[in-house]
Amino acid sequence: MMPAEMIERQRIIDTVKRVYESYGFVPLDTPAMEYTEALLGEYGEEGTKQIYRLESPEGEDIALRFDLTVSLARVVAQYQQDIPKPFKRYQVATCWRADKPDPGRFREFVQFDIDSVGCADVAADAEIVAAMCETLEALGIENYAIKIGSRKVLDSLTKWARIPPERSKAIIRVIDKLDKQGLDAVKLELGPGRVDESGDKIPGQGLESAQIAKIEEFLGLPKKLDGLKAAAKLFAGVPESEEGLQELERMDGLLRAFGAPEDKAYIDLALARGLDYYTGPVFEAYLTDAPRFGSVFGGGRYDGLVERFLGVKIPGTGTSIGPDRLLAALQHLGLAQARPSTADVLVAVMVKDRMADYIQMARELRESGLRTELYLGTQKRIPKQLGYADKKDIPVAVIVGPDEFEKREVSIKDLVVGRMKAEGIEERADWLAERPGQVTVLRSEMVAKVKEILASHSEGNA
Amino acid sequence: MMPAEMIERQRIIDTVKRVYESYGFVPLDTPAMEYTEALLGEYGEEGTKQIYRLESPEGEDIALRFDLTVSLARVVAQYQQDIPKPFKRYQVATCWRADKPDPGRFREFVQFDIDSVGCADVAADAEIVAAMCETLEALGIENYAIKIGSRKVLDSLTKWARIPPERSKAIIRVIDKLDKQGLDAVKLELGPGRVDESGDKIPGQGLESAQIAKIEEFLGLPKKLDGLKAAAKLFAGVPESEEGLQELERMDGLLRAFGAPEDKAYIDLALARGLDYYTGPVFEAYLTDAPRFGSVFGGGRYDGLVERFLGVKIPGTGTSIGPDRLLAALQHLGLAQARPSTADVLVAVMVKDRMADYIQMARELRESGLRTELYLGTQKRIPKQLGYADKKDIPVAVIVGPDEFEKREVSIKDLVVGRMKAEGIEERADWLAERPGQVTVLRSEMVAKVKEILASHSEGNA
Repeated sequence: MMPAEMIERQRIIDTVKRVYESYGFVPLDTPAMEYTEALLGEYGEEGTKQIYRLESPEGEDIALRFDLTVSLARVVAQYQQDIPKPFKRYQVATCWRADKPDPGRFREFVQFDIDSVGCADVAADAEIVAAMCETLEALGIENYAIKIGSRKVLDSLTKWARIPPERSKAIIRVIDKLDKQGLDAVKLELGPGRVDESGDKIPGQGLESAQIAKIEEFLGLPKKLDGLKAAAKLFAGVPESEEGLQELERMDGLLRAFGAPEDKAYIDLALARGLDYYTGPVFEAYLTDAPRFGSVFGGGRYDGLVERFLGVKIPGTGTSIGPDRLLAALQHLGLAQARPSTADVLVAVMVKDRMADYIQMARELRESGLRTELYLGTQKRIPKQLGYADKKDIPVAVIVGPDEFEKREVSIKDLVVGRMKAEGIEERADWLAERPGQVTVLRSEMVAKVKEILASHSEGNA
Repeated sequence: MMPAEMIERQRIIDTVKRVYESYGFVPLDTPAMEYTEALLGEYGEEGTKQIYRLESPEGEDIALRFDLTVSLARVVAQYQQDIPKPFKRYQVATCWRADKPDPGRFREFVQFDIDSVGCADVAADAEIVAAMCETLEALGIENYAIKIGSRKVLDSLTKWARIPPERSKAIIRVIDKLDKQGLDAVKLELGPGRVDESGDKIPGQGLESAQIAKIEEFLGLPKKLDGLKAAAKLFAGVPESEEGLQELERMDGLLRAFGAPEDKAYIDLALARGLDYYTGPVFEAYLTDAPRFGSVFGGGRYDGLVERFLGVKIPGTGTSIGPDRLLAALQHLGLAQARPSTADVLVAVMVKDRMADYIQMARELRESGLRTELYLGTQKRIPKQLGYADKKDIPVAVIVGPDEFEKREVSIKDLVVGRMKAEGIEERADWLAERPGQVTVLRSEMVAKVKEILASHSEGNA
């Protein structure tokens, strides 16, 4: 990933870190390689096709991780006595899947996971979702929706529709396709099956039409708290259906206490998530102005995952973020910065023999808090050096030639003005008219003048 | 890596990033997997033993990178037209070597590389070293030494000692052992060979004693600029010996302009670096209070590396950091923080039904800029919750029970005072005497009081 995108990826990752750290989450790192056996436990056959396997020098069967959840469960089991619980950790790391790359889906990708392990209360789920709202807002995203559903409520649905418990997960995986495939496709897949866009036959679940009608009725329930009331009516005859609904009601109330906006983080009972290991609330975040990017965050409660390693049930809840999907969505929305440099100033080098003086100037600018690049390339001519600054979108250049050295002056060039003029941006004519583009000041006034020009750019939203 | 160390690793990495970004360096990311052929070019047989090889789904021969330099050279060659030069980039990423793990040497490790590609002037080398000084100082390290040598000067040495050019690199690799093995071992290895500590025979280079005497004379030259003058005298009869010495003299002058302290970043002509690809200045940083950790930064100029991919010579210089070696050294020096949390406050939860109120309190603290963890574990008793805060080294806890809720008050517990009393730290008796350990204030005064207690900790260096 080239610098312009990397700078933005880092901004996204740093924002997520900062917000979740302010809630007490701490970083964890685990090796990229795990024993193949540990990795495959949860995923079975599908997993074996997707992982990169290799061999340790001792001949052990190891593989590259394809997510961060298995490693978390292993660490919690292995260091059970040493880790204070709840263990609220985040991890941002590379994962690998050896499958066919799609647009937006890569074999090597960065994943950012946030989990609370050891907290049974849905307050932990609400905390993760609330911090998610804060993160999206900190990234400049105003229009988003975080839907909150519940695996327990979906289990009540399948009971209500008289679907045998062992078939419940398969049915939920079909319901999970609602957003992408639409209601008609889901109904066909719940019933006789369907043929997809590429002509492939997708087998159906063979439910009866009365069962499908019940599922459809459920999927049509209103959103937010009204949906809970309506669901309670539907499930009146289903024992144990209250628990899931009460959890969501509690979670909704706590979300309001956390400050999560009710029009943006709300209950949507139709939300299912594909993975089998969820046991309670599930959630997904969408950017409402960029729906085609799908969910940019997603997760839920998984009270059984650590059990696999430990034999003891430890509750947990968490979310995954794909920083690069979020980056693509931000780019699409024009909310991503695309500067290939973070520098504020370029100090051009005109008289090579005076390099020590240019270094001193750069140092002075840097010590005043400005990120300052000293031109160290092979171009001798100033226009070429300014071309370098333009390519890197550096807003200001400081130029000192033999004359200026003699008079103890510096020329300061406002490169943003230059670029705007070159692009002929008419609507900025007023803004441009007030700006000279280049000024010469005493060396002692250099720092103040550069800061003044930089400040004028943010006024003009340049 | 568990949170206490991860927090410190992140602090180190963020410090390096911040300093180098202030000099205009930008981040780059490259895939962990490269074609095996591309990776092995430079390293030949030794390389094949050390890399983890795997297969892409298409059956291509790929491998995990073992450093970041090869990938940089590939990127510069591949995107030659798009990358403005000089390309000053940093990359922090995981690398893998399938060799025997040693103490302090792991199969999977994080590497931080900083390089300037496309800059022929040693001003680029000086810039990297000066930013290195600033980084070490920003990490709280006062006592360090950055030695600066030159491959060109060493080539002059081998000419002066009448060693054939094709044997020069092998001789330099022996000289590189000076710091670790000492002069006597180096002399034996330049001559007849030696037997190492474990009884293994190390073959010698078979130089004559007159040649070894010349090398010894060179290795004994004074440090700093005096060394350059003395070397100039030695090499008076060696054509082309001036270039390397003049480069170092220029670099030393520019380092002073950059503000690198002359007692900490200085010329030491005896510094050699093992890798074959260096062509100009080389440098290494040591923590003088922790010499056994060896070099914590190291690098140099390599004007031929990109050529391998491109067929065109592009100058470059750069340095590598092992953040985890630096972390180990900082821990040894007592300069590493070891808190397993970054939270400032824990909000304890006494009355579960009032969770929304606890959330509001945590939110208020967070909005005032304090990193605030809300207790979400399964422990109901306050002493147990405070035990959790102690394990995570959280300095302050806010406690509200039924009485306090009624009176609109909060109890604030200074956990640092509690921990000191528990440890019976006598020399802090005065400091402790003034501190009550727990106070009760109005809810409206909560934020101010917590901040006051936190401020009192830094006064007491607690």
